[in-house]
Amino acid sequence: MNKRLTFYFDYLSPYAFLAWRKVRELPQNYSVDINPQPVLFGALLTHWGSLGPAEIPPKRRFTFTDILRWAEYYQLNLHWPLAHPFNPLPALRATCLMEGVQGYQEFISRIFDACWIEGIDITLSEFLDALLLEFGIENGLEKSVEPVNKQRLKEKTAQAINSEVFGVPSMLVDQELFWGHDQMGFIEKYLKDGASLDQALLNDVLSRPAAIQRKR
Amino acid sequence: MNKRLTFYFDYLSPYAFLAWRKVRELPQNYSVDINPQPVLFGALLTHWGSLGPAEIPPKRRFTFTDILRWAEYYQLNLHWPLAHPFNPLPALRATCLMEGVQGYQEFISRIFDACWIEGIDITLSEFLDALLLEFGIENGLEKSVEPVNKQRLKEKTAQAINSEVFGVPSMLVDQELFWGHDQMGFIEKYLKDGASLDQALLNDVLSRPAAIQRKR
Repeated sequence: MNKRLTFYFDYLSPYAFLAWRKVRELPQNYSVDINPQPVLFGALLTHWGSLGPAEIPPKRRFTFTDILRWAEYYQLNLHWPLAHPFNPLPALRATCLMEGVQGYQEFISRIFDACWIEGIDITLSEFLDALLLEFGIENGLEKSVEPVNKQRLKEKTAQAINSEVFGVPSMLVDQELFWGHDQMGFIEKYLKDGASLDQALLNDVLSRPAAIQRKR
Repeated sequence: MNKRLTFYFDYLSPYAFLAWRKVRELPQNYSVDINPQPVLFGALLTHWGSLGPAEIPPKRRFTFTDILRWAEYYQLNLHWPLAHPFNPLPALRATCLMEGVQGYQEFISRIFDACWIEGIDITLSEFLDALLLEFGIENGLEKSVEPVNKQRLKEKTAQAINSEVFGVPSMLVDQELFWGHDQMGFIEKYLKDGASLDQALLNDVLSRPAAIQRKR
């Protein structure tokens, strides 16, 4: 039976963009089904009291540098969003509307590519409405803001938090959580051999006490 | 002329431990001198208003998991510190005392290995005093807490902040900052070809405005 990889993402994250390019290809080589779940990254940060990389000036600078280094490595010509961070809600809600619909994963790729490669403003109603129509959903933007659909994104985000997801991209297979686009090696290893870490050892180190606490 | 790689680290960070094992080997293959600089990680976090991975519960859990995955990958049998985070000041100050002394880099390796592989409590005076003596420094612990030496660590931390270092491990070569133990590929590439990113492109994306701000 195929394993199931849940891919938690927000279009805001260029690392999620890089990870998605690899994750979507996994079924070509592994017995795995991909289950993409859009989540609101900002809500994860707020829930866990964490900070996004763009919220600490030198980390923003490093992150942008790192992404451009990766883009060079993958020979990707990124045009980058014209404003960042932007409001990801319209695109995330449009994505919720597509779950279960033919072409769901391709739809996600199209938004990621529009945002990071083509530099299209993916917050624009015209863009999202036309894209939804292309995938067979009429009056898409209107449907995407109906309460039942807005609730879907909230539930996905809550479910991610429930799975201890604190950032994007996060990949969950069975009980194994992988955070970051650099985890593909570990993910492929797990899909190959299914061997988790020594849980007794993990629980041992997790249970060790803190000897110091930073004054904040 | 050799390039100079400044390695900013705190013994607290298992990623710094992993990075150091690779960084110290670089001169075998590249024309580079390694300049290790101990810094107080907590002071970086406080300065930048950032949070350490151990300060967000699910991120602590993920980080510990990730380190154990890497340890398995490198076939390292980690005993892990008995308490974490611990007070890194005595070991960092002892390290400041060793700068410029024969065996400086080996001294750093010994503390990292004691902490992460051997599970020795590196906050113990007996451990640090004996280690300093082994490297030829008598009354080492006493000397390490003299104001002039305490000031050294403060200055190194301030200098790191001045170079936009926000976390450990950070590696600085010329003006290129690399953060995290997963950056070795980029570091080796830079040491090989010396090609920086397209600065005009980097400045372009860095200058793009934020279209949204998270309520905190």
